Amino acid sequence: MTASSAPDSHPSASAEGWARQVRDGDRRAASRLIRALEDDEPGARAVLSALVKDGARPRVIGITGPAGAGKSTLVDALVAFHRARGEKVGVVAVDPSSPFSGGAVLGDRIRMQRHATDAGVFVRSLATRGAVGGLARAAWDAAAVLGAAGFPIVYLETTGAGQADVDVAAVADLVAVVCVPGLGDDVQTLKAGILEIADVLVVNKGDREGAERTVHELEAMVALRHGVSSTTDPVFVMKTTASTGEGVAALAEAFGGLVQAAAEGPAALRRGLRARALLLDALAFEARKRAALLLDADPQRGGLVASVAARDRDPVSAARELLDRLLRGDTISG
Amino acid sequence: MTASSAPDSHPSASAEGWARQVRDGDRRAASRLIRALEDDEPGARAVLSALVKDGARPRVIGITGPAGAGKSTLVDALVAFHRARGEKVGVVAVDPSSPFSGGAVLGDRIRMQRHATDAGVFVRSLATRGAVGGLARAAWDAAAVLGAAGFPIVYLETTGAGQADVDVAAVADLVAVVCVPGLGDDVQTLKAGILEIADVLVVNKGDREGAERTVHELEAMVALRHGVSSTTDPVFVMKTTASTGEGVAALAEAFGGLVQAAAEGPAALRRGLRARALLLDALAFEARKRAALLLDADPQRGGLVASVAARDRDPVSAARELLDRLLRGDTISG
Repeated sequence: MTASSAPDSHPSASAEGWARQVRDGDRRAASRLIRALEDDEPGARAVLSALVKDGARPRVIGITGPAGAGKSTLVDALVAFHRARGEKVGVVAVDPSSPFSGGAVLGDRIRMQRHATDAGVFVRSLATRGAVGGLARAAWDAAAVLGAAGFPIVYLETTGAGQADVDVAAVADLVAVVCVPGLGDDVQTLKAGILEIADVLVVNKGDREGAERTVHELEAMVALRHGVSSTTDPVFVMKTTASTGEGVAALAEAFGGLVQAAAEGPAALRRGLRARALLLDALAFEARKRAALLLDADPQRGGLVASVAARDRDPVSAARELLDRLLRGDTISG
Repeated sequence: MTASSAPDSHPSASAEGWARQVRDGDRRAASRLIRALEDDEPGARAVLSALVKDGARPRVIGITGPAGAGKSTLVDALVAFHRARGEKVGVVAVDPSSPFSGGAVLGDRIRMQRHATDAGVFVRSLATRGAVGGLARAAWDAAAVLGAAGFPIVYLETTGAGQADVDVAAVADLVAVVCVPGLGDDVQTLKAGILEIADVLVVNKGDREGAERTVHELEAMVALRHGVSSTTDPVFVMKTTASTGEGVAALAEAFGGLVQAAAEGPAALRRGLRARALLLDALAFEARKRAALLLDADPQRGGLVASVAARDRDPVSAARELLDRLLRGDTISG
């Protein structure tokens, strides 16, 4: 492991060296690459492409679910499990902070204290305020960098803030939705929104009263869905008590087996749908950026903004005109 | 007011008739147009464009802020104020429902019971699950239709779920952020996320202890910001007690005055920035849609999705390739 980080002066010239540093396990080089990708620094994307092309692909497990389900404790217990087996493990913690609450930013400092001095654990928090599209791609990038840096298992944890979690979870190979016993009517709402992305449903805090009943309710729900659509199954229901470690080893081993199994069948289909959404989101992000350059470069284009601001044009027809201009080649190299 | 709705068979041929029905105040035609715009039905956009071109532009006031601030009660009181003056008023209630909570969908049925039989009030709920970009444009469209249908004042209320509210509020001419007394440390977080979009800060539940102090804290914060950046001010701080109606008339009148004043100065700048963001969001939405058509039409393109799913390609570089193909004219008419 080298202590040097990539030189700032010639990012493209040093791309190969930077990639090598990351592959050699240089944590500073890896951290700097993740940040450079977030900031869209010139050259950073080429480094990632090189790493992705010949680097090891990490197994990425998304851990999502409502606030209070114990996701952080569960991830902590999973990390402890892998470390006990001598496996290196990465954690990407994503906090799509609410503009109202200010968001409980999961700083690297306050998280994972237990593993803070362990060179076999790499924790990285992402908290890009607001830019959900940006968060999902930042999470993909961070997981890929961690994989290339020698952390073959990466847990991708979200904070349960809502739709953003679903988007971010789409980055994972496998998504576990964590919930707690006693959902009651919430099983119905869980069904509506979350089952689409879940490969595993985890009933955490399994020592609480009603845990078994919740497991059975979820299993019944999953079985019911299986009758309706064979593309969305199988979804496994598992029970853990993260605070004591109960059920954590079984869960971690199930993840491993499921990633293997996910090479085909419904899980592969689900992964393909997630990749499609991720690709399209990234495309929308890029198109927005290029259109913004076009708007800013040409004062005449400002007329479109003004007409929308004055309610003389509806934003959709104005956007279609702008996109047509972009498509006609009236473009600025992005 | 006619009871007939637009024929389904020849939407483009009936565009003029449909627009006329809306302008004549036909509520069913207006509701149907809002739904058709949400569903992107062929022809609906042309009807809206016609209405926008020669119809009256509504004054749209965004009411946003954290859950529990009393936004619905405040909107209800504002509606009562306008009705007492004989003014017709529309309400667009937006619920970017959380996939975890299932979202407290603000059904037209359960809201605004007080005004349910009043022909001078038009309430419309939008709850497009997940599609935030879609919600903002749907809100813009709904407000424009209500304006054309003879409701010159439209309140656009969001549920305080987070970033989505900020995006949706961008549709308004003027944004009021509602909060409650005793924010304490939250003033700092409010500052960070919300002040950027607020034209008015409303301290609701003004009869609670500490209301005056919260008003003064917010005023001090606003004054401090004014020193830092002249483009983000003035932001007004007002106090209401929506449950008793106290301060509501003053607030409604302030809205009216501010919309007039907003023709120039910092408020106009803020509105321009909002329109720009709305236009770019709509563009990203369109680009995503066209790229999805491209992916679906050509099986060869599926290779991009598969390579992202297999982690052989990072989504950003794959998206750039896809966008370049789109820009090279490899397009399908959207």
